[in-house]
Amino acid sequence: MPDNNLRRSDLLETAVKAARTGGEILRRYFENGVTMRDKSTDGGKTYDLVSDADLESEQAVAAIIRESFPDHELLGEEDLKGGDANAKHLWVIDPLDGTNNFAHHLPHFAVSIAYYESGVPIVGAVYNPIREDLFTAVHGQGAFENGNQVRVSESSSLNQSMIGCGFYYDRGDMMRATLGAIAECFENDIHGIRRFGTASLDLCQVGCGGFDAFFEYKLSPWDFAAGALFITEAGGKITTATGDTLPLETTSVLASNGKIHAAVQDITTRHALPK
Amino acid sequence: MPDNNLRRSDLLETAVKAARTGGEILRRYFENGVTMRDKSTDGGKTYDLVSDADLESEQAVAAIIRESFPDHELLGEEDLKGGDANAKHLWVIDPLDGTNNFAHHLPHFAVSIAYYESGVPIVGAVYNPIREDLFTAVHGQGAFENGNQVRVSESSSLNQSMIGCGFYYDRGDMMRATLGAIAECFENDIHGIRRFGTASLDLCQVGCGGFDAFFEYKLSPWDFAAGALFITEAGGKITTATGDTLPLETTSVLASNGKIHAAVQDITTRHALPK
Repeated sequence: MPDNNLRRSDLLETAVKAARTGGEILRRYFENGVTMRDKSTDGGKTYDLVSDADLESEQAVAAIIRESFPDHELLGEEDLKGGDANAKHLWVIDPLDGTNNFAHHLPHFAVSIAYYESGVPIVGAVYNPIREDLFTAVHGQGAFENGNQVRVSESSSLNQSMIGCGFYYDRGDMMRATLGAIAECFENDIHGIRRFGTASLDLCQVGCGGFDAFFEYKLSPWDFAAGALFITEAGGKITTATGDTLPLETTSVLASNGKIHAAVQDITTRHALPK
Repeated sequence: MPDNNLRRSDLLETAVKAARTGGEILRRYFENGVTMRDKSTDGGKTYDLVSDADLESEQAVAAIIRESFPDHELLGEEDLKGGDANAKHLWVIDPLDGTNNFAHHLPHFAVSIAYYESGVPIVGAVYNPIREDLFTAVHGQGAFENGNQVRVSESSSLNQSMIGCGFYYDRGDMMRATLGAIAECFENDIHGIRRFGTASLDLCQVGCGGFDAFFEYKLSPWDFAAGALFITEAGGKITTATGDTLPLETTSVLASNGKIHAAVQDITTRHALPK
């Protein structure tokens, strides 16, 4: 066990170093982005900027991981899409989660890093470089915000709950499915719906108790790989929107404090599109 | 003119001092709130806390304004509901905008302070005590985030736009009207919808260019009094959801960078409830 723990602390250290390094790159682009956007009347320029930020962050993150663990596989949003989800040693990387916020200069985005062993989440780190908020989790050792252990909320019914949600880049049936689920949440007298636009931070917010639940009908593994561990280590639950075991592949996601999981799952299942 | 400018700087100084003082009170309650929430399994306790924070912030804000301007009227969310919107000298105060976020421990809320002369907005200050972000505007002198002048975005069509929205505490027709307008925004290929939960900060985000537009079907004057000035001083436009002149009373609100105002107004008008 001591060896195992030592190893996990090494993994966590690498994840945190990578997340902070990627985050600092994003913050630099974000601050420069303001200036460039002000000078330009062409919205397209912002999107060039974003791509540079994504790629530079991913390269820096990958370099840090490869330096410490040269034989591990990498799976990520940009140039790392070939990674095998069932690899013995796998790092799952989102070098810029919340790209749309970033492009519109909304100060809410993150770097998300997770380490999986044969499909099992072992370490997760999510870093918000604007607030300098670091969310970390290690399998069996709890979930922490800036070093302070956190727990999911205690809300036990929808009429006490704040629910986060996300919209996939879809303008048809999936958008309407999401709005249908939101309407039914409201009809169950929830306190409110939130749409912040960065899935990894939304999942951490479930772990910290700010959201009682979160759902989105389509997410990529790098969006939720770290957040999923954070939630279970904070005492919560994460499944697909229809209650199935969460696969490490593109899927719907429902996360909660556990206590309202079945109630939200009833709603998200009712509105889910046929497979 | 010099006298007039001097006076406005005095008004701004008072507004900023009041916003920062109220904000510090909220931050203290917010940080203590975490501890109390963890100890309790009764969600109700959080709501008691919130009321204390609201009232203490409002009392501190009112005391600062009355010390500098004892003959001015005050209009606010808690104990100051009697203020006359057309008074010669009127301060419009939201001592805690984003109460629902605050209660759920989501770190996104603000104090909003505005000064109106005979119905005309002269000074506005909105303070986010978690990010320590201060948004200020003086009639004819521009809009500033932490002392840096800001402008609305340049997006000129819906398919380049990020749109913020709000839901009034309604679980029936007004909720469905809001969802209908959101659906039509998506059908016009917007980049995304955001729901952050604090109207004063959402309006400032339009002024800063993060949102290209924002709408909500029902807001109180203290929610938008400061943000409305911030937007017009940042080069944007603010009306009711159906394009009428914004009254300083409970109303629908549509704010934008000006360029996409008509396009969003078409949508929000189509979904607005009959008066």
